[in-house]
Amino acid sequence: MSLVIDAATQDLLFREARTANTFTDEPVTDEQVQAIYDLVKYAPTAMNSQPLRIVLVRSDEARERLVNQMGDGNKAKTGSAPLVAIVAVDTDFHEHLPTQFPHYPGAKDAFAEEDARIPTGSFNASLQIGYLIIGIRAAGLAAGPMAGYDAEGINKEFFGDGKHRVLAVINIGRPGEGAWFPRNPRLEYDQVVTTV
Amino acid sequence: MSLVIDAATQDLLFREARTANTFTDEPVTDEQVQAIYDLVKYAPTAMNSQPLRIVLVRSDEARERLVNQMGDGNKAKTGSAPLVAIVAVDTDFHEHLPTQFPHYPGAKDAFAEEDARIPTGSFNASLQIGYLIIGIRAAGLAAGPMAGYDAEGINKEFFGDGKHRVLAVINIGRPGEGAWFPRNPRLEYDQVVTTV
Repeated sequence: MSLVIDAATQDLLFREARTANTFTDEPVTDEQVQAIYDLVKYAPTAMNSQPLRIVLVRSDEARERLVNQMGDGNKAKTGSAPLVAIVAVDTDFHEHLPTQFPHYPGAKDAFAEEDARIPTGSFNASLQIGYLIIGIRAAGLAAGPMAGYDAEGINKEFFGDGKHRVLAVINIGRPGEGAWFPRNPRLEYDQVVTTV
Repeated sequence: MSLVIDAATQDLLFREARTANTFTDEPVTDEQVQAIYDLVKYAPTAMNSQPLRIVLVRSDEARERLVNQMGDGNKAKTGSAPLVAIVAVDTDFHEHLPTQFPHYPGAKDAFAEEDARIPTGSFNASLQIGYLIIGIRAAGLAAGPMAGYDAEGINKEFFGDGKHRVLAVINIGRPGEGAWFPRNPRLEYDQVVTTV
């Protein structure tokens, strides 16, 4: 009763949505990715910093380079998903603050030091990955986020400038046969929420 | 055209939703928080780790202790929001893996070392904060996430066990008069998304 979005949307975005482990062959188009981005870009980040960057792995050559960096349990699905996205933090996100957070002209200089920039960027890019996963589902697609890979290897293969750090790899597509593992339990409210 | 959720829901969750800076007096009930949790708890985390913990600051005494730790620009709104939540990572999240990720009995021991646990927990709790912000909006409420506070002070005041680390403080309620600052621009698709 407390939620205002309808039950079907609750199911689509959260209750029935699952991390897919197999996919159909149906392509995921650039138009779909653009629609997802144009939705989730509005979700909030500190100082409007928007540090998330997304690399769509579309060529066979890039796909092979990525699969080589994935953990064994993730290689098959990363090799066969219609689209794979490498999501990363741009540790030079502060370069955009003069245009993205114009009412605080000192914002860029406040992040002159990498030691301040990297944790802020990583945290906010992680929030944005949360938004992105919900956005992928809002497009009727399944997301398969993965953490099992050689991060240094991916950074070297795909981010030669040393300014980006991979945070996750996400398979995207329509769920295929046997896409779901059985759902694991969730923590109870009282295990997560306390009141003071 | 690529999105399957309706335009009103897109607006509610993303396009028209904004970070609120003032709130009405209307309370936010435990029932609302429970409904939000029961929605967003399904969103994915690595190994079903669910490291996010939420402290609802309801007593005057706790509110005062929190406001004292907030940056000057955040004190007034943190003091007046109907509900304030401290969201934190439980760095001992691995204790729950035997029940939450039962098909991999070695999961807990794989996180025996804090050096592996803290980055994984912080990343996944940050994803969950992204889900939570969308969930707050799904309940028709506005969220006001803040990063300007003394993190060590909050950890000391509210997490004396040394096992939790604050990641954000979120004001929650119905937007009040003058709740919104003008919306800042967003990065263009081509600034964020590349294809290889």
